Parts: sequence; structure tokens; C-alpha cells
Amino acid sequence: MTTDHSAGPDTGGGAVPALRVGMVGHAFMGAAHSQAWRTAGRFFDLPRRIAMTAVCGRDRDRVSAAAGRLGWESWETDWRRLVARDDIDVVDICTPGDSHAEIAVAALAAGKHVICEKPLANSVAEAEEMAAAADRARAHGVRAMVAFTYRRVPALALARRLVEEGRLGRIHQVRAQYLQDWLVDPEFPLAWRLDKERAGSGALGDLGAHSVDAAQYLTGQRITSVGALLQTFVTERPVPTSVSGLSATAGTGRGPVTVDDAALFTARFDGGAIGVFEATRFATGHKNAMRIEISGSDGSLAFDAESMNELAFFDRSEGSATAGFRRILVTEPDHPYAGAWWPPGHLLGYEHAFSHQVRDFVEAVAEGTDPRPSFADGLSVQRVLAAAESSAAALGVHVPVLPVRTH
Amino acid sequence: MTTDHSAGPDTGGGAVPALRVGMVGHAFMGAAHSQAWRTAGRFFDLPRRIAMTAVCGRDRDRVSAAAGRLGWESWETDWRRLVARDDIDVVDICTPGDSHAEIAVAALAAGKHVICEKPLANSVAEAEEMAAAADRARAHGVRAMVAFTYRRVPALALARRLVEEGRLGRIHQVRAQYLQDWLVDPEFPLAWRLDKERAGSGALGDLGAHSVDAAQYLTGQRITSVGALLQTFVTERPVPTSVSGLSATAGTGRGPVTVDDAALFTARFDGGAIGVFEATRFATGHKNAMRIEISGSDGSLAFDAESMNELAFFDRSEGSATAGFRRILVTEPDHPYAGAWWPPGHLLGYEHAFSHQVRDFVEAVAEGTDPRPSFADGLSVQRVLAAAESSAAALGVHVPVLPVRTH
Amino acid sequence: MTTDHSAGPDTGGGAVPALRVGMVGHAFMGAAHSQAWRTAGRFFDLPRRIAMTAVCGRDRDRVSAAAGRLGWESWETDWRRLVARDDIDVVDICTPGDSHAEIAVAALAAGKHVICEKPLANSVAEAEEMAAAADRARAHGVRAMVAFTYRRVPALALARRLVEEGRLGRIHQVRAQYLQDWLVDPEFPLAWRLDKERAGSGALGDLGAHSVDAAQYLTGQRITSVGALLQTFVTERPVPTSVSGLSATAGTGRGPVTVDDAALFTARFDGGAIGVFEATRFATGHKNAMRIEISGSDGSLAFDAESMNELAFFDRSEGSATAGFRRILVTEPDHPYAGAWWPPGHLLGYEHAFSHQVRDFVEAVAEGTDPRPSFADGLSVQRVLAAAESSAAALGVHVPVLPVRTH
Amino acid sequence: MTTDHSAGPDTGGGAVPALRVGMVGHAFMGAAHSQAWRTAGRFFDLPRRIAMTAVCGRDRDRVSAAAGRLGWESWETDWRRLVARDDIDVVDICTPGDSHAEIAVAALAAGKHVICEKPLANSVAEAEEMAAAADRARAHGVRAMVAFTYRRVPALALARRLVEEGRLGRIHQVRAQYLQDWLVDPEFPLAWRLDKERAGSGALGDLGAHSVDAAQYLTGQRITSVGALLQTFVTERPVPTSVSGLSATAGTGRGPVTVDDAALFTARFDGGAIGVFEATRFATGHKNAMRIEISGSDGSLAFDAESMNELAFFDRSEGSATAGFRRILVTEPDHPYAGAWWPPGHLLGYEHAFSHQVRDFVEAVAEGTDPRPSFADGLSVQRVLAAAESSAAALGVHVPVLPVRTH
Repeated sequence: MTTDHSAGPDTGGGAVPALRVGMVGHAFMGAAHSQAWRTAGRFFDLPRRIAMTAVCGRDRDRVSAAAGRLGWESWETDWRRLVARDDIDVVDICTPGDSHAEIAVAALAAGKHVICEKPLANSVAEAEEMAAAADRARAHGVRAMVAFTYRRVPALALARRLVEEGRLGRIHQVRAQYLQDWLVDPEFPLAWRLDKERAGSGALGDLGAHSVDAAQYLTGQRITSVGALLQTFVTERPVPTSVSGLSATAGTGRGPVTVDDAALFTARFDGGAIGVFEATRFATGHKNAMRIEISGSDGSLAFDAESMNELAFFDRSEGSATAGFRRILVTEPDHPYAGAWWPPGHLLGYEHAFSHQVRDFVEAVAEGTDPRPSFADGLSVQRVLAAAESSAAALGVHVPVLPVRTH
Repeated sequence: MTTDHSAGPDTGGGAVPALRVGMVGHAFMGAAHSQAWRTAGRFFDLPRRIAMTAVCGRDRDRVSAAAGRLGWESWETDWRRLVARDDIDVVDICTPGDSHAEIAVAALAAGKHVICEKPLANSVAEAEEMAAAADRARAHGVRAMVAFTYRRVPALALARRLVEEGRLGRIHQVRAQYLQDWLVDPEFPLAWRLDKERAGSGALGDLGAHSVDAAQYLTGQRITSVGALLQTFVTERPVPTSVSGLSATAGTGRGPVTVDDAALFTARFDGGAIGVFEATRFATGHKNAMRIEISGSDGSLAFDAESMNELAFFDRSEGSATAGFRRILVTEPDHPYAGAWWPPGHLLGYEHAFSHQVRDFVEAVAEGTDPRPSFADGLSVQRVLAAAESSAAALGVHVPVLPVRTH
Repeated sequence: MTTDHSAGPDTGGGAVPALRVGMVGHAFMGAAHSQAWRTAGRFFDLPRRIAMTAVCGRDRDRVSAAAGRLGWESWETDWRRLVARDDIDVVDICTPGDSHAEIAVAALAAGKHVICEKPLANSVAEAEEMAAAADRARAHGVRAMVAFTYRRVPALALARRLVEEGRLGRIHQVRAQYLQDWLVDPEFPLAWRLDKERAGSGALGDLGAHSVDAAQYLTGQRITSVGALLQTFVTERPVPTSVSGLSATAGTGRGPVTVDDAALFTARFDGGAIGVFEATRFATGHKNAMRIEISGSDGSLAFDAESMNELAFFDRSEGSATAGFRRILVTEPDHPYAGAWWPPGHLLGYEHAFSHQVRDFVEAVAEGTDPRPSFADGLSVQRVLAAAESSAAALGVHVPVLPVRTH
Repeated sequence: MTTDHSAGPDTGGGAVPALRVGMVGHAFMGAAHSQAWRTAGRFFDLPRRIAMTAVCGRDRDRVSAAAGRLGWESWETDWRRLVARDDIDVVDICTPGDSHAEIAVAALAAGKHVICEKPLANSVAEAEEMAAAADRARAHGVRAMVAFTYRRVPALALARRLVEEGRLGRIHQVRAQYLQDWLVDPEFPLAWRLDKERAGSGALGDLGAHSVDAAQYLTGQRITSVGALLQTFVTERPVPTSVSGLSATAGTGRGPVTVDDAALFTARFDGGAIGVFEATRFATGHKNAMRIEISGSDGSLAFDAESMNELAFFDRSEGSATAGFRRILVTEPDHPYAGAWWPPGHLLGYEHAFSHQVRDFVEAVAEGTDPRPSFADGLSVQRVLAAAESSAAALGVHVPVLPVRTH
């Protein structure tokens, strides 16, 4: 090998300064984030080179194996040690919701930029604390973002662009569904996502949070009240012996399901729109149908994550003779993010949105701007979820959602 | 022409006794019903020959023209005269909802079998009166049916059969949408369907009634409570100078819209299912998307009236390697009603369900059985609609729906 | 009943003069045509009242039953008697292809207007004789039309309009499939459609004829050469004991299948386009998938008869950011034929195109113009089919198709 | 940082021996292959650690930039130097077709395992030379594979499994389309893919090669003859000033297009099936619609790369009441490759199939077995393409395709 022909570091970016990342958690979300940190610089010109410096997990054997498999240079077993390391610039939080607040607040206080998985927290109080911490950190140039990754799916980014351009006119209605079916088997075990202490809520927070953020993001309107119905169809399940991602192995005992299996709610928005939401893990046959449709006076948009490279668009300015929902294949060079990848018609997958998220986050950090969705956006979603729980406890009466004071 | 080669009467049925029909109203629904009365005997072996004896409308010129165009032998301008005619066996009510109760009660009292368009009435009180009248008439062998015609769309009849056969297992969830967009133009005039006095309600009663009946019919479960949100986006519209079907011509003045443009509600069913409903005339791009999806423990079904010859079916008993929503083209000989028409793959249209309704009604009359959906079924829907209005007036709190006492 | 309230004749049209129809054949096509003769005047303002004067079939019992069921005033057992009747203005030929030429030529010679089912004939020679007869008849104001009914499906009529308006630019390619699967069971019996003497050819003539006519109609280009491959997968089948429409009952003996099960061919058009065609009765799972797609320099169109109320349209003049195939639901008032029926979004079925055909034919007769598709159009298709058979017999070499001399 | 917490090398695989890869070419295909070499070990347990040792390109500036961007440790400007390096175990050929033979033969002779992009070569003679070289190399444990990557799309791998399991019964028909539209603009410049010297052929070889390989792979039948029609719609184009992937910038002069824009052909298979193929770059609105459908006596399958996570499956063993094409979302743990990635319903993208290809290739190398598709498979495809060109030159007459002698 000729040494003058040797090339640069592995994650792209050449001579630009490194952004050193430490990730907490290495399960489903950790794998997706790792792939993004590794890949973003290969397809986008990032203003910072990414260094995958450390991963953190509680179990020494599992975290060391994960470091090798996912490509992290080192590992830790205590997130406090990770946060304390001075070779870390960014803390990426991929743990269950019950630890988000503590880690994020500490990381921001330590001057680390933070990406935090959604939902932002398990309670409004925690989310408020996190949003306040993000405000304080901002004053010191430290950035915080919550990972509502669907905003970075090209089809939804295009949807937002069309709304901003006024192609939909005045927005009247939102219909959002997030349909999964992995709990329809009553013998599926009691994974942590079914435990209110760990997960905060069930389908409502896990799935509905995405729908609420997407609805507010796409419409540019804030939800002002919700009326909800929550339902748990299977109230006891086998205690698991092992869990991996969304799959788990059933054990012998049984324990109570303490979260909702399905959440239904109606909503009012501050711009006059109304919306209907469904989040469920009992929609037999639907695997990850995160669907949202926006109806406006001049047009409509529809998206389904099971066909995530497509956006349906109805343009009422077309005469009725040729109007119809168009299936836009969102893989063109002039579509958001898509031009960095493959020629038109070549699809992107689930994890690509995570690379887009890395791109946008790194750009914001480099430019000294605030990435979105902010912790305030995450808090806004949290308040909607909390109002839905309150409403469900009060037979569905509409409960107001307070606005988030932004800075 | 050789007389011994002359053939039978026009509406089919040969030597069987005639069932003599009088129809009240001759607009959109009247045209659909007329086509059904004329056609059913051509494709089904009816136990009665159909005589299209008389049509009734208030305007002499319009009703006489309608009689000729729609194929009725005679016409009347007063429904009381029609009901009084002794050459009429069946009264078919195709008028707006405010006149249903009066006509139906009188017709049943006069010993006429009755088919009444949906919604059964504009109020629960009227619907109760009608159901009581139907009960009294039944004792004399007089039959009453409400025209929730979607039950006779082959795809939905097949859906019901699959539920009855247990292919869906325990039913967990219903999601129903009825999406139209003919009101999205704020200059669309103030048609009678936007007047609470005439129409009872807006999208809720006109569209939601279909969804509620279909949900109860398909699941075999009764709705026990609803929490609703009603919205009128455009509160004033031009007073029309002429109206025809769903189209109308705008005049110069403006008047208030007194019904809902969109209705959203969540529901609980007596068998443990939950449901979410949307009925709207503001879903830009959707013309007649009456959609319903049922999720059960063993399978799921989905229907969309804009693709009304199809039923989507997910069978969880398939292994996950080959499971998927099947697009069943409901045109096979072993599908409900379909065998009477064309070879497989040749589609049926909107009005075919009306011919199926005539077939079932005539058979019930001939056999002396009670046709379904009964007036009690119609009352049941009416109570759901009324509860939705009560709920909407009480900020969406769930309002119980009383069961209908059946006989 | 008050006599001054009695209404006009049954098939609509009031005081306008009658057009008296005699139909030969009363199976599948006869039922579809009957429904159209009965219905067209109910939804369209026809310049002639339709009289369904006589139906003709060889079996006395079956034809008399058919007359009653299908609504014909009288019946005949010999088409020559029908043609000779002076109370008949139109002869509607719904028999297998082997009798088309004889009946049509005689009827035209007798001064009857003729509608003839497709394919026009079983041979080019017959088709030429028929086209010549139509030419002679035209001189006497007698009209002839071949029933390529797909031209009257609103979605395909709209497709033609868009091509005529130049929305597709220069047309480059046609891809046409006609997929059925009713022969995939090797025990399906030897129906007349599998007998070369009766049917002329198999999938090629029965299905491919529709595709060829649609391709020439939609593009406005004529096929100039074809290269074909014909295949019979199942060469012997049970001799049937009874046959009805596309269904039949198997008997004990076996006989040879003398037509193709599937036909594949490529084509060149006189305007520079190329095309690929497939007609098959072995496409398992496809029931009546008559599909055609046209690709032009400025746009594309796609149609599938299994979703016959839809037309897919891609408009390249849209910027790539929002371009996509639109699903146009062809049920709007400004769509061809659709305004006569139901409100937008309410579907039409298979037989509606036959009513449209009646409308256009009756208008042409009343106006004294030549209806299309003409017998010359039918001959043009026949020549393509014959060239395909010649090509298949010569290992697929492209065989030229002679143009039809038009008058 | 605690050194005992440092983790393994970047491309996964831990302590297993490295497989050192050198890639020739770094444009569209080079980017896809690089992503696969980088990613496969993160999601699959590979028996070899991947070392991305060197990339080769003719232009020093461009290849050095590519090395950094795509993550290669070093670079070369002459493929002969790359092949000669003793720190290279695998040569991955991502260049245009005119250089495949020379590089592959040299690499195999040098004892390097080879992956070669498709089509295998620009002529049958070259492909035969390559297949012979692969045979010789095999004797020394050196492996060769051609990159028909669609075989590794989970949906098509599942399709093959269903055929192997007999779920389709006897296979009757194949219909394959590969539809793109990037040449429909006549001002699109004369990229290398339009130059017969570089590319061998046009749509035929670039797109049709995929379809032919997929058809033979899925059916398990070999094509024995083809009858073809080739067409060039735009015969002169602007000479480009720069080209990148499928995009290029037009210059001032014009030059001749020497390849086909569209290729249509019919085929016979050795198992009795027949097929129809279309490959085109003029199908306006279709971006990468690589579609294939297989019809068998017991079932059918359909795939479209624009919805590449889906497989449509029709199972005729279902009764006709519930049979229908199922949309299988091929993201389940028991689907080929899918379990290594994300939970059900989370989509894979275009480049994932390249990671699967790396997985299978590395496993074959480690196990000492022959990877498929082999160079003999590539030669088989090449013979079909050559026969199509011969047929097109002879007015479409069917030209036989000789079988490849396998070892």
C-alpha cells in the first residue's frame, strides 16, 4: 500500500473538526442512531466530522458487545461517567422515558449538546424541567433537540413545505392514525413498554406522541384541547424472561399491564382546525402504519409510514376533470434530503430519517442555531398527552392544553 | 309481430303476483330507488313482480316529468293521496328527514309496507314513534325497513359474513370515516342538507348515520356511549336559487348554516370494542369515501366506498411470512348478491346495492319475515346521533346511548 | 288511480319517436345490452324512445324465458325472421363471432341499423364483407357500429380526451394487458369460446381485440405490424354438458382446445409509437384486468378495468417536486357520461358503458351521423389479430397490418 | 477515556479475520457498494471482518476525494495496481460494462475473489471468457459473483422461496417491466449509458438484464428463445460536459444515441412458461418501476421496486370467497434478511439489498462455496440479451438462446 494514497477517517468529513458523540442506550433506538452517526457524513457534507466516541449501557457485557457491533470507540456503564467525560460533545439519549429528564438535565448542565429520544419525558413536570434546562443551556450555546424523527422523513418534510407554500390553503382537518398490532396476541409478554413506571403511557405516548408532533408540525397549529378514550384490552400478561427491541420471550408468571393498548382522541387546534387521533397496538395487520392526513381549503395531503417514500397530494386548483390524489414518489433531487442518496425511484428506508436528523442537528450545532423539534416542542407534545390522560379519566370531556412559553 | 311470441311485463317476474309500489320523493334517492325497482327483477328471481305504480312530489310539473323519466305509471302531488290509494302495497319514502315520521306512520297505519330512507328521522322522538308504528304494523303482517343501503354492498355483506363466521375473532376496534368535500368551497350555496329543520343534522346524520349503522351491523355490537366534537367551518353561505341533488346554484343573499360540517366521535360498544368515527364534508379530494375498518384478535377488514367492489381482509391465522391484507374483488359467484350480475371481475356500481335492497325487501314481504335494518335499527342509530349531539354540547364528555327495546 | 296522472312509457323518452330494437342472442352480452336498452333513456335525454321489440334465440323455451326476464316484448327463434320484421329499426347482434357476418350483412341489406358485438368477425374476409356492407348501407342512411364498449367507460373516454387535448405530448409507448384466469383450472370444460370454429381465436380475439381497439383509439395511431407468440397451456378439456356465460359444467369426454390460452405481441404504430400486448386467461388472481397504459413525452395515463372508475394520470408539466400519478376518480359532472348518473364519488359498474353506447348510437342514428367504432374500425382490429396469428405461425416475425380504406 | 473500555474496529466483526476489499469505480454503484461494505457487519454476524482497503478510479483528485467520502483506507488510479496488491482479497467491479471482462479475468487470475456489477459484460464473447475464468478460479477456491442485487431484495427472495415451496404450482407466465423515464426529455445529454461502446446496449442491458435474471431466478426456468423489438425514440442528444450517476449536464454539440431507448420482447422458457418483457427509459412518471409478476397454476406473485418492501401474493388454494392478492409487507423476522434490521413495518431502502449481497458473498467465501448469481448466470443473461438484439435485427423472429454449460 502506498502511504500517500491512504485516505481519511471512517465516518467522513475529512479535515473538519470532530463532533464527539456519546450515546446512552443501545437497543432498537441505539442501533438506529448508531447507523445514522456512521452514515450521515457519507452522503451529506457535514460541517463537523462525527466521532462515535462512547456508548453507555448498564450491563458491562452487553454494552461492550454493543460498542463493537455498533461501531463505538469505547463504552461506559454509568451515564454519569459518560456525561462527565471531556472528550464528549454530544449526549444522545436512547433510553426509556423514565431516565430522560435526569440524563438530559445533567448533560446540558455539563455543557453537552443533547439529542433525546421521544417522548421527551414520562410526565409534564419532567418535560418542563428539561425545557427549562434547555433554555438555560441555550444561553451558553448548548443545543437540545427531541428526536421526533418522522419530521425528517422526506415525504413529511415535503408535506410541511407544501403547507408552508400555501398549497393547502386554510387547514380544516387532521386525521392521524398510528396503527401497530404487536400486542394482539394476549401471550405477548409484559415488556417495559407496558409498564407505566418505565414508559409513562402505552400507545398514547409511544405512538400518539409521533402523531401529535407531526400534526402540530405539519399544520403549524397548536392543539388547544383534547377529548380522549384510553383502553387496555389485555390487562394481564406473562412476565418476560428476556426482551429485545419490540420482541420478548414469555416467562411463567403474569403481571398487570399498566398502560393503554389503544388511545383515541379528538382535538381542537389554535388555528381553527380540528383533528382525530388513534394510536393502537391492536390494529391487526398493521405493522407500523403511522398515517396522517391534512385537509385544507385548497388541497390535501396524506402519508403512511408503511409506504414512507410516498406522499399523496390533492391539489384543488386543478380543475375537477383532472384532479386526483397524486402519489408523489419522494425520491427526486428537489425533494428534502432525497438528493443526497440515490437516483429517483430508489427508495429510502426507516433509518434514513435518523441520518437526516444527524445532518440537521450537526448543522445547527455548527451554525449556533437552535435545532427543531426543541425541548419546548417536546413539552408541547407532553402536555397534549397529559391532557388526553386527564380527559380519559373524566369520561372524555375536552381538557385544555396550555401553550408552552417559548424564548 | 307474432302475438304468441309476445313476452311478459317489463319489470320482470312473469306470472307471479305484483307488488305495487308508490314512491315519495324523486330527487337523488328517488332516482336510485327507481332504478332498483326497475332492475331487481331482471337479475334476481323475485317472489313478486314489481309494479312501479305511482310517484309523489309536491310540484305538479316536476313530478309528472319525473314519472316519465323514472318510469312510474302515475303520479301524485300529495303523499296522503298516495298512502290512501288501494292500488299501492309499498310506500317508499325518499324525502328529506323532516317528513319521514309523518309519512311512515301514516303508511304503516294504512297497511302499506314501508321502506324509509336514512336517517330514519330527524329526532329520537320521531324515530321512537316510527319504531312503535312498525311494531304495531308487524302484528298485522306489515313490514318496515330503513334504507341503510351500504349493508347491501357485496363487500360489506361479505364483511359481515366473515365476522359471523368468526374469522376476525374477538373484535377490538372500529375505525370509520365518511369523507366528502362538496362543502369546501365557501360559495357553495345553502342547500336543504345545511338546514337543521330539514336535515336534522349535517355530516353527522347524513354521513355518520351510515357509519354508525355499518359499525353496529358489522361488529354485531351496540354502541353504548359516544364522545363527540362537531364543527361548522363555514357559518354563512349564499341562499340558493335552485338545488338538484348534491349540486345547487348560488343566489345573492346569505343565510346561516345550522348544521355541522364535520363530526368526530369516539365510541364504546357493548361487546368491549371501541371505535373512532369521522364524518365530514370538508375532506378535500375525497368524494364519497365511506370507509370502515374492523380490527379483531384473529383478523381485520377494511372497506372504502370509493373502491366499493373490494374488501381488504387480513387473516392472522396465516403465518407471518405470507400474511397480508388481501384485496378481495367481491364479484365472485359465492359472494353476496354478486352472482346475479356479471362474471368475476366485472364491477358493480353505486345503485346495485339498491337493487339488492329491493330483492331482500320483496323476499321478506313475500315470506312474511321482518326485513333488516328495521326501524328499531334506525332508532338505534338515531340514539347514537342524538348522544353525539348531546356530547358535543357538553365539551365531548361521553354520553350513554340507551338500547332499543326489540320485540 | 287518476288517469290524468298516468305517466309515459317505460323506457323513457316521452313523446319522441321510438327506435325499435331487435336483439339476437341473450346470454352474457344479451343481458348487458338489454340492461342498457332499458336504462339509457332513464339517465340520458335520448332523441328517440327505445322500444325493446324482440329478442331472438334458437331455443324456443330459452328465448321465451329470456324475453320475459330481460324485458323484450316478443321473441323469435330465427334471426332471419327478426331481420325481416318491419317493426324493427335496429338489429343488435350478441351472438358468437361465427354468425356476425351473415346476420349483420343481411340486417344492413334490410335497412336495419346494426350494433355488432366484438370481435367484428372470426376472419378478415368476413370483416371486410361486413365493412363493405356498412359502406353500402351508409349511402342509404343506415348505421353500423361495433361494440368495443370500453371506449364508453368514462375513464377511457377521459383518457382519449386528454390525449386529444395534447396533455400527453408525443406518444411513445403503449402497454396493454388483458388478464383473466378462468381457464387456469384444467378441468374447466370446453366452452364455445375454446372452439376455433365458433370463437375465431382464444384470448387473442376475445380479450386482445379490446386491447387493440383501445390502443388505436386512445393513441389515435394505427398498428402497422405485430410480432406474436400464442400459447395453449391446456390442450384437452372436458366436453361440457351445459354452458352459461363464462361458466360451464364439465361432462365426461374430452376434446381438444383449438384456440390460444394466452397471446403476447409487440407492435409498431404509424405515429412512431411502439406497444406490448398480453391477453391471457391464465393470469391467476386477475379476473378482468383490462389494463392499458400510454406513455407520452408530456404525460402518461393508466387504466385497469378492475378499478374502472379510476384513471391514473401523470402530468410532466408539474415540477418534479409535486409530480406523481394522480388517481382521478372519474365520477365528476365534467367527466364523460358521468354527470348523468350519481354525485361525485358514487361508482359506476360494468354495464354502465353499455348504456353510454346506446346513448351514442341512438344519437348518431337520430342525427344521421356515423357512430364509432365503425365496422371499418372493427376490420382494422381484425387485421391486427390476423397478423398476430400469422406472426405466431412464423416464429414471431413482425407481420405488416394493412390499413383499412375508409370512406 | 478508559482504555479497557475501548471497542473494536469500525466495520464490525470483532476478532474474526479480515476480508480486504478493493473496489474499482466510485460513482453510483460504487457509493452503493461502499455503503454495503460499511454496513453489513453492523447488522449481520459475518464470518469475516470487512476491511475497506482501497478504491480505484482513473482521476487522482476524484478518487482521493471518493476514498475519504466513501470510507476507503487508500486509493489507486490504475486497476492493475489494485489487482496486484497483496493486501487485497476481493475485487469489487463497479465500472461500466466495457471494462468488466478485462478486470475480472485479471483479478481472478491473481487469486482475488470477484464481485462484478451487471450486466456481466458488453458481449457474449466477453461473458464467456469471464465464465471460463471463474471456472478456472473455482478450482483454486477463488469465488466470483455477478451483482444482480434484486435477488437480495427481501420481497424477491421471499418470492423465490414461495416458488420453491410450490405455492405457485406449475408456472405459466411471466410479465416483467422495468420502467424509467430519465430520457424522455430530448435535451437530456448523451451520457455514457447511451454509448454502445461503453454500455453494450441501452434499456435492454441496463434494465432488461435485471428482469431476465429475476425471471430465470424466480421461475427456476431458463429462457430458450426471444422475439424482440428495440426502439430509439431520440436519435441525437447534446454531448454532455459533465456526468454524475444518472444525471448529466448538456453541452453544445450533439451526438448520436447508439443504444435502444426501449426494448420489448416475448420469451419461451424451458419449463413451458412464456413471458413478456419491457425495458424502457421513456415511461413517463415511472422512476424505477422494476416490476415482475409470475402466474402459476396455484398462485401468483407480483413485485414493484417502487414499493420494494411489498410482495403481492395470490393463493388459489383459498376459496374464491376470500381469495385476493395479499400485500405482504416483507419486514417480518421470518422474511429473508429482514430480521436483521428493524421491527416489522419499518421499511428497508434501495441500498439494503447491497448489504445482503455482501453478507451472502462473504459467507460463501468463508464457507468455500460458490455464491450465486454466478458468472455462468451472468452469461446466461447475456445470451438472452444478445438473442434479443439478433431478433430485433431480424424483424422480431424468435431467436434461440443456448444453455450455459455449468460445471
